[in-house]
Amino acid sequence: MSESILSQRLSHVQNHLQVAPCAAEEESRIKTPIESMAEERQKATFNVRELTYYLDGGEKFTKVREKFMMELERDPTFRMYDMYDVTKDQIRERTMEKFRTIVHYVSAEPVPIFTMRMQTISLIDPGFWTRFGVHYGLFFGALRGSATSAQFSHWVSKGALALNGMVGCFAMTELGHGSNVAGLETTATFDETSDQFIIHTPTITATKWWIGGAAHTATHCVVFAQLIVRGKRYGTKSFVVQLRDTHTYMLMPGVNIGDIGKKMGRDGIDNGWIQFTNVRIPRTNMLMKHTKVSRAGEVKEPPMAQLTYGALIQGRVAMVVDSGNIAKKAVTIAGRYAAVRRQFSSNPHDVQETKLIDYAIHQYRLMPLLAQAFAFHFTGVETNKLYEELMDKLESTQPGDASMGEVIDTLKETHATSAGLKAFCTWATLNAIEACRQTLGGHGYSSYTGLATTYNDFAVHCTWEGDNTILTLQSGRYLVNCYREALSGKSQPEGVEYLNHLDTLLTQGCAVKTHDEILDFGVIQEAWGVVTANVVKKAGDDFETSLKQGMNPEAAYEECSQARLAAAKIHSFGYVFRRFAQAVRNAPEGLRPVLTKVCLLYGLYSIEQNSGFFLQYRYFTPSQMDYVRSQVNVLCRDVRQEYIPLIDSFNYSDYMINSPLGAYDGNVYEKYFEQVKKQNPVGQPHPYLPLIQSLLRRDIEDDEPLEEDDDDDE
Amino acid sequence: MSESILSQRLSHVQNHLQVAPCAAEEESRIKTPIESMAEERQKATFNVRELTYYLDGGEKFTKVREKFMMELERDPTFRMYDMYDVTKDQIRERTMEKFRTIVHYVSAEPVPIFTMRMQTISLIDPGFWTRFGVHYGLFFGALRGSATSAQFSHWVSKGALALNGMVGCFAMTELGHGSNVAGLETTATFDETSDQFIIHTPTITATKWWIGGAAHTATHCVVFAQLIVRGKRYGTKSFVVQLRDTHTYMLMPGVNIGDIGKKMGRDGIDNGWIQFTNVRIPRTNMLMKHTKVSRAGEVKEPPMAQLTYGALIQGRVAMVVDSGNIAKKAVTIAGRYAAVRRQFSSNPHDVQETKLIDYAIHQYRLMPLLAQAFAFHFTGVETNKLYEELMDKLESTQPGDASMGEVIDTLKETHATSAGLKAFCTWATLNAIEACRQTLGGHGYSSYTGLATTYNDFAVHCTWEGDNTILTLQSGRYLVNCYREALSGKSQPEGVEYLNHLDTLLTQGCAVKTHDEILDFGVIQEAWGVVTANVVKKAGDDFETSLKQGMNPEAAYEECSQARLAAAKIHSFGYVFRRFAQAVRNAPEGLRPVLTKVCLLYGLYSIEQNSGFFLQYRYFTPSQMDYVRSQVNVLCRDVRQEYIPLIDSFNYSDYMINSPLGAYDGNVYEKYFEQVKKQNPVGQPHPYLPLIQSLLRRDIEDDEPLEEDDDDDE
Repeated sequence: MSESILSQRLSHVQNHLQVAPCAAEEESRIKTPIESMAEERQKATFNVRELTYYLDGGEKFTKVREKFMMELERDPTFRMYDMYDVTKDQIRERTMEKFRTIVHYVSAEPVPIFTMRMQTISLIDPGFWTRFGVHYGLFFGALRGSATSAQFSHWVSKGALALNGMVGCFAMTELGHGSNVAGLETTATFDETSDQFIIHTPTITATKWWIGGAAHTATHCVVFAQLIVRGKRYGTKSFVVQLRDTHTYMLMPGVNIGDIGKKMGRDGIDNGWIQFTNVRIPRTNMLMKHTKVSRAGEVKEPPMAQLTYGALIQGRVAMVVDSGNIAKKAVTIAGRYAAVRRQFSSNPHDVQETKLIDYAIHQYRLMPLLAQAFAFHFTGVETNKLYEELMDKLESTQPGDASMGEVIDTLKETHATSAGLKAFCTWATLNAIEACRQTLGGHGYSSYTGLATTYNDFAVHCTWEGDNTILTLQSGRYLVNCYREALSGKSQPEGVEYLNHLDTLLTQGCAVKTHDEILDFGVIQEAWGVVTANVVKKAGDDFETSLKQGMNPEAAYEECSQARLAAAKIHSFGYVFRRFAQAVRNAPEGLRPVLTKVCLLYGLYSIEQNSGFFLQYRYFTPSQMDYVRSQVNVLCRDVRQEYIPLIDSFNYSDYMINSPLGAYDGNVYEKYFEQVKKQNPVGQPHPYLPLIQSLLRRDIEDDEPLEEDDDDDE
Repeated sequence: MSESILSQRLSHVQNHLQVAPCAAEEESRIKTPIESMAEERQKATFNVRELTYYLDGGEKFTKVREKFMMELERDPTFRMYDMYDVTKDQIRERTMEKFRTIVHYVSAEPVPIFTMRMQTISLIDPGFWTRFGVHYGLFFGALRGSATSAQFSHWVSKGALALNGMVGCFAMTELGHGSNVAGLETTATFDETSDQFIIHTPTITATKWWIGGAAHTATHCVVFAQLIVRGKRYGTKSFVVQLRDTHTYMLMPGVNIGDIGKKMGRDGIDNGWIQFTNVRIPRTNMLMKHTKVSRAGEVKEPPMAQLTYGALIQGRVAMVVDSGNIAKKAVTIAGRYAAVRRQFSSNPHDVQETKLIDYAIHQYRLMPLLAQAFAFHFTGVETNKLYEELMDKLESTQPGDASMGEVIDTLKETHATSAGLKAFCTWATLNAIEACRQTLGGHGYSSYTGLATTYNDFAVHCTWEGDNTILTLQSGRYLVNCYREALSGKSQPEGVEYLNHLDTLLTQGCAVKTHDEILDFGVIQEAWGVVTANVVKKAGDDFETSLKQGMNPEAAYEECSQARLAAAKIHSFGYVFRRFAQAVRNAPEGLRPVLTKVCLLYGLYSIEQNSGFFLQYRYFTPSQMDYVRSQVNVLCRDVRQEYIPLIDSFNYSDYMINSPLGAYDGNVYEKYFEQVKKQNPVGQPHPYLPLIQSLLRRDIEDDEPLEEDDDDDE
């Protein structure tokens, strides 16, 4: 790809400049959508391509992403223009076709590169991404995480890695059981006589439910079930169970499977339900890296259960990254449309209506979302880095090592941080998608403009891999514990570093001399520190009070759950701002001015949205808060100047965006009309003509009563 | 319906009571979902049936609604159990079948009764409701509002009322033009020679777009177009244009129509696009109640354009009512599920997991939404009453009457109020649907549980009949004007009555002696009054400042748009609270205690969500705000006690709810499983077997490189 997208674009802009009329003439004539877009690109004060490189982590990675985008766009199995009109069955068929294409790359590409390929795919086809993730992330991930090395080799030799001979799914949730994994009902009872486990679904609520890939495609399954040996229960463990014959695809004896059917989104994955009726599997199909059951029925439990956390973190980090990516896609569509859509006129002397984006209220709707997309992008990058460092540490540390305690602390911190961020970022992104959709006006309700489907596909992120409310509460519980540790003098890690300065923070007000000093990363960071410290203290104190009243710790946590939820949310705001601010400080010099504005907007807008806390804890005075509000408007106007170049830096091709309203060149109406006509050709036979004709040509007299006879007596 | 739903239900509860074991025994055994639900019904301290009557406006109307529910449930064209699996074409066919059923009632039933029938239908099939509304509300409504009486009679004689011989649609919006009706591009040019208008679509952006019913079903259309007579433009007027032959359904010459295709929701209506190419219609097809064009080409414009506002108000009021109804449906589903779903245990000694609804955080998620549903219900009732009073006044007042000025004032007020409330209630309800959906956990992502579809169907309410942001700004503009009038001493009407006390309100703080005095309708009402007065003042002062800086009024309004938006939102909160509080005061004595709690919860929760304003304007101190927060939790716990009886009072049958998780008897798992199996039967042929087999049985060697030959030299 030696002719980069940028150079194509630059030449496009230059062509425009060459034919552009002089300024006075320019003002007086009607601009086409393409011209309306082109003029936005002239406003850039920074090098768009340099920002793309910075976002991608370097030119090398940008090139790789562009290679992926081109490969996908030209691959017929990944055609996307008709995706909004295919049926559930058709889209599932396509998932299998894509599977066939993508398995080639699994073994051919190094993991980080292949991960980037999948991230690119997740942006255009979340259903396929899920089906693929179910096999490689969940099924194969469970083997890697929970199988002994002999077991792992066995399943790889059967085709679990190369996907030849078997394809997997992952059965944790049940009809009546979701977040509480310990409460699952499916049983795995050891039968000493035959050296087998009997996998069984005892009740309707124990039916495995939502199992991605189970309805039609999986041959094998990692099943979570209650281990029972000699009548004693040992909690939930995982077992490999064959579901179907790998040649005929007939169900194995005792296995009953059905299709979950229509979903809100991601219909490309065939979610199913499974009931096991006394299904027998070899003892060695239990994954025994942690808990082991011997031939004689002896159960050996693992020394450190926490080490199994690692697998959970990976999925959550992936969703933080996906939040940033999808948020960027949503603002690309909404942002480009706003640059060409014109409506009313704010000046009676204008010959043309005003661009949406030139209205203050539209800037206020979109610019904070653009800022948030950047914030989530950088948070994703940083969280991914933390996760990888943690995995390196875990792999290089053995249970007996002196540094193990420290590693466990990092694990706990990363676990809590990723839980809180997964919830925070997916919630905010879901809202952002809907807000962007609404900025498209009526056109946001068309499937072809993309954001309705994006909403429906994304919404599941708020629930799976940990329900957001429960994850936020977990994060709040971690904060309460850190607070209590900090009170007892134990120094706290970077993520909750503010808890090391409780004495000064709790009563601190904003010490600026003039309002404009608030426009400073340090002040905003301090503001979040003060407010977070206070909100965490509130949760911690509530917890303490409950303990003193004689509650057990679980009841005390429950009692302060509302305070924990608030603490975790506020903590995440501050955390994300710090990540963004750090990324701005680390940015190349030429990018810092524009990124500084975007980051200040994110910081101040977030403060405005949570103004109650900043006034409650008296960090800001009402007058300072008025200033914050006014500056949000000023920064919106400011960021608006370069917002199209900022969006361009996300570097998504039109194919990736898959929305005519987000077209790079701004030619939105023609592209939109073309797509609608392509998918719904004119001149087709009328689909329900007889129904209409019978309605319009019916005998009205049918509805009328018989007229009474006036002359009974004649 | 002499055997009322209630009596069936009461006997159900009584049966349960008779077989219920004694209290101690009860505690120690596992409860089924049905038992978990039944025990909730025993907690009612009020008469559920009496509350239903109060909500419906009397026993008589409850009976009518129950009659409608039974008729719909038994009508095969209104079968709903398979609605989540039908294709776009199938659901449109059903729309036409339903049309055939419902036209019988249009002429047979008085308007208020028929309106109740349609409200009932809107809850189960919003797509059909829309298609019906397009003909009767928009097309026929336009004839009634804009045709002369001779024209009106003409179109009625052609079948516009009885729907025999013609069916209508309404073409206002264009591909490039939505909210700005004055900016529409379609032209209607008078041709004196032939005494005809020439209807023409001059550009691609002038293509009529989103036109409900145009794709396949409408024969006639009311078209909004720019009136041009002798080269002069007179603005947007409306014209009846025939689209199709009423026998063959072939398009008329010059008419080009296509299908808009797949939408986010409401696929039951066939939205289309229309292009007119020099289509000629008789001059008398222009609707001339207001503007008239004579045979000689003389244009006579109407004396009072405001009178055309009336039609807009009706649609907005209908959406406020729909918000309340859909909000009630959403909390019914989420609320009933929360009474039977169990997860984790908050007490280690429990033999059974804890009901979702017994977690403080779940109460905090649901109870405020239940309170809001009541608030919107009563607001809908009241807004409808205001609208009807206004229509009565308009009909009984002639242009010359002395009272006309007062009527115009009421019209303006109702227009602004309904605009603000439409936006406020539809936004809040859309969020409530999603919040309810998320409380269902993973099951909220299944189509069969209903809320995903409810979200997709409802979302369009935020855009059509006035984009919510634009309506909110209009409402804010009205408030700015009222504020300026109030400053100049003019007394303001009831809806903005607080502006008559600016002197005292603007600096007022909460004067309670002890915190618990805050739990009072009067204090909460005053709190909203103070905050709204301040926020409106902010917008008004910003406007004034801009004027003084020399801006024209339009630019000054634009400058304060963010402040206007905030003012309108805060105003609506206070307005809705007042409506709710008034309804509680008017309620039968036996209902007042429980409704008082629900209303206090709505008031305090809304204050908590907007705490920044109450602290900013120093109505509440931080310590009082802490109390408000704590009382929200207390009230959530309190309302939770009777929340199932409160939900029961909404009196939606299981058929209306159409979600197994919202089943009245609580038997959610069996019903959900049955529905999934019914729609996705087991044992079907495998839909894409060859694709999977070719994936799993492929030659892995295809992917491997040719091995290099080691012995070149041999």
